[in-house]
Amino acid sequence: MSEPQVFKKRPGVCVQGLGFVGAAMAIAVAQAKNPDGRPSFDVKGVDLPNKTGKARIRTLNRGRFPFPCSDPKLSAALEAGRKRKNLLCTDDPSVFSSADVVVVDVPFHLNADAERPKPDVDSFRGAIRQVARRVRPGTLVIIESTVPPGTCENIIFPELPSGVLLAHSYERVMPGKDYFDSIVNFWRVYAGHTPEAAGACEKFLSKVVNVKKFPLTRLSSLRASETAKILENSYRAVNIAFMEEWGRFAEKAGIDLFEVVSAIRKRPTHSNIRQPGFGVGGYCLTKDPLLASVGAAGLLGLKKSSFPFSAQAVGLNRRMPLVSVAKARELLGGRLRGKKILLLGVSYRQDVADTRFSPSEVFVKEAVKEGAKVICHDPFVGAWAEMGLRLKKKMPLPGGMDLIVFAVAHEPYAKLDVSKWLSGSRPAVLDANHVLSSAQTEAFRRAGCRIAAIGRGDLA
Amino acid sequence: MSEPQVFKKRPGVCVQGLGFVGAAMAIAVAQAKNPDGRPSFDVKGVDLPNKTGKARIRTLNRGRFPFPCSDPKLSAALEAGRKRKNLLCTDDPSVFSSADVVVVDVPFHLNADAERPKPDVDSFRGAIRQVARRVRPGTLVIIESTVPPGTCENIIFPELPSGVLLAHSYERVMPGKDYFDSIVNFWRVYAGHTPEAAGACEKFLSKVVNVKKFPLTRLSSLRASETAKILENSYRAVNIAFMEEWGRFAEKAGIDLFEVVSAIRKRPTHSNIRQPGFGVGGYCLTKDPLLASVGAAGLLGLKKSSFPFSAQAVGLNRRMPLVSVAKARELLGGRLRGKKILLLGVSYRQDVADTRFSPSEVFVKEAVKEGAKVICHDPFVGAWAEMGLRLKKKMPLPGGMDLIVFAVAHEPYAKLDVSKWLSGSRPAVLDANHVLSSAQTEAFRRAGCRIAAIGRGDLA
Repeated sequence: MSEPQVFKKRPGVCVQGLGFVGAAMAIAVAQAKNPDGRPSFDVKGVDLPNKTGKARIRTLNRGRFPFPCSDPKLSAALEAGRKRKNLLCTDDPSVFSSADVVVVDVPFHLNADAERPKPDVDSFRGAIRQVARRVRPGTLVIIESTVPPGTCENIIFPELPSGVLLAHSYERVMPGKDYFDSIVNFWRVYAGHTPEAAGACEKFLSKVVNVKKFPLTRLSSLRASETAKILENSYRAVNIAFMEEWGRFAEKAGIDLFEVVSAIRKRPTHSNIRQPGFGVGGYCLTKDPLLASVGAAGLLGLKKSSFPFSAQAVGLNRRMPLVSVAKARELLGGRLRGKKILLLGVSYRQDVADTRFSPSEVFVKEAVKEGAKVICHDPFVGAWAEMGLRLKKKMPLPGGMDLIVFAVAHEPYAKLDVSKWLSGSRPAVLDANHVLSSAQTEAFRRAGCRIAAIGRGDLA
Repeated sequence: MSEPQVFKKRPGVCVQGLGFVGAAMAIAVAQAKNPDGRPSFDVKGVDLPNKTGKARIRTLNRGRFPFPCSDPKLSAALEAGRKRKNLLCTDDPSVFSSADVVVVDVPFHLNADAERPKPDVDSFRGAIRQVARRVRPGTLVIIESTVPPGTCENIIFPELPSGVLLAHSYERVMPGKDYFDSIVNFWRVYAGHTPEAAGACEKFLSKVVNVKKFPLTRLSSLRASETAKILENSYRAVNIAFMEEWGRFAEKAGIDLFEVVSAIRKRPTHSNIRQPGFGVGGYCLTKDPLLASVGAAGLLGLKKSSFPFSAQAVGLNRRMPLVSVAKARELLGGRLRGKKILLLGVSYRQDVADTRFSPSEVFVKEAVKEGAKVICHDPFVGAWAEMGLRLKKKMPLPGGMDLIVFAVAHEPYAKLDVSKWLSGSRPAVLDANHVLSSAQTEAFRRAGCRIAAIGRGDLA
């Protein structure tokens, strides 16, 4: 237990949940400043008094970000908040009772089974109760979590004491190089349960977000805001899944689909078209598209709402890494048994360390099942929690490998000096995620490596 | 038969097919100028010596565009070409023999049955033979038609005499206010069968298109260019179909989905997200998504290529107007029998006259089948060919109507003075395509009209 927490000089903000979103949000709120240059808020980051929560709190209070972080702006803002003493983290929920604003960043979990998505309402409601039983009337509670439509009205609101102002404003946090800016310098959507709550939320966000450059959008209802977030991520997931069929076609038809896609993207009306790839991972796109049907049926009583494209996309995206397994098999003469594969990249996205629902997991499990030995490497991942693996920091050499799979476009891979690294060895190569430049691809070919790529039939 | 055509002073360009694309393309090519300000080409527009073809030729030669046209730039360029005498249309195919460039704008037809798409290869090949049996070696033949991947290599190339340069550069023509600019001031993709053909195509396009502002993109193969066009339109069709489920959800959940979508579009990565609507029509989006599987199976021998999202989207988009029929039924107390419906808009798109595969057709047929009397109006359509109907120019008054359906966002509807037009009558109103402004919606409500809208549950 940390020392008791009270807000003294400034309006107090609690951020509940110090994961990828909440930890960064707490830092962003702490850096908000009044026109006179003085900090707008005293910020308390709150997490659970369990092992994970305590570790995050301790790390943040020492001025370090609790996850690998490649954004210098975020690290600098954390350090500044610590020096300024307006950012402190704690596992003591009693701070909620003196907060003026509570920002909720606890996750709403769902087992992401596309056919039978099952929400974990109880643990989310439990977290909300931690806040609800302590906040005072007049406090603004902002839900940033991605939740099924209807959650704010039907699960959260009934828990809150009367007089509390409830708002929803979903986060669009993107870990990586622009982690901090994805909060502070980015568009925001919000809605309030009442006009008063919407107004309070607007006032708060206007201090945290650069609203001059990125104006806020107010929506008419909490469920509109909840829906907006899910629709955003469903759109993304469906557009990734849509490209799958085109990738397979391009490979068979001898076309470089990346060349085609970049020609199409020149049209502004088509700039969001996606590319084929290795798979879809992370905490959001793998489950969010299923939240709409969960909310419709479970919270809003709309039994007949079906979201066929979204469900299809989630299933298809999850199976996507198996296409790379099949390509690996092809490159290795029809079977994986006894083959040594070097898999480069295990996180779900380039230049981040997050391995949740990573497509590499699907790849490794299948390849191992088929009898391959898979050596994994990721410049950002030391311990791969989901697989219970410790990875060596140094990039393994290709000697003795039958196949190299480039799975994630981490910068060190994109900068790899191919011929130096190969130093005479000639493994087969699969570029599963458009990682290699044309010069690197050419270097592998010149060295005599057989090479194939997802979405490209022009290499055969 | 017109007088025999020969090119004299300048390089000669034939545009084959004077439909929505070819007629505009012929005008665009005729306005191309050399650096000294003199016209680059002598242009002959060529169509068939049948009734439709002859009518188009006659109309163009009189300086009028053969289709209703709301773009003053296009009309002006036509008039200038006629005065300059470097644009003349004909039904005499012998002009192909003296052409330096032939631009092919004849359609590749497909019965757009999503389950069993059946291409009409014979009539397309017939048109190609008209050119192929006449062109000289050295002539550049540019295919602008949207065709299944493999068509240029496997259907067109074998017909051409040796020495002819074959290229594919698909059109992105968009009738409406920016008709002319959609050719001249827009991005272009192209590919050649040989580097020489690609080079010749680039040289030609650089004279017609404003390439300084809209640089050309060269692709590696004809089939890559063919695929790019189909992928573009499939992307669009799938993204429209994707929104369907969200529209239904919003209506039931009491959400205004247009508000949500416009909040989401602020993110540049999500700017292409579509809205729910009345349906998808026109010649392209209703069939193009099926051309990939036609090309894969029929021309490239790739039996296993399936495009599930595309096929699903085509089917779903075609059935979309039935949702508006169901809403009409709801608004009218459960059945349409004996009800009078005024349908506003029958073309497939705002501010154009094209009624091919219009969603209004599906709506009218179903509503009539259910016993309704449907009166149609469209400010751009005098004769609705597909339905064999003549429409009155003047907008009907709502008196005596049970329901008004706004189906197409034509400008005159968006500018309608609601209370003046109603003048005391109180029909039900369905805004099926986000046609009405909030002021117009409010005016209908104030007048006592029951109103519903596709994609909006907040009006109930």
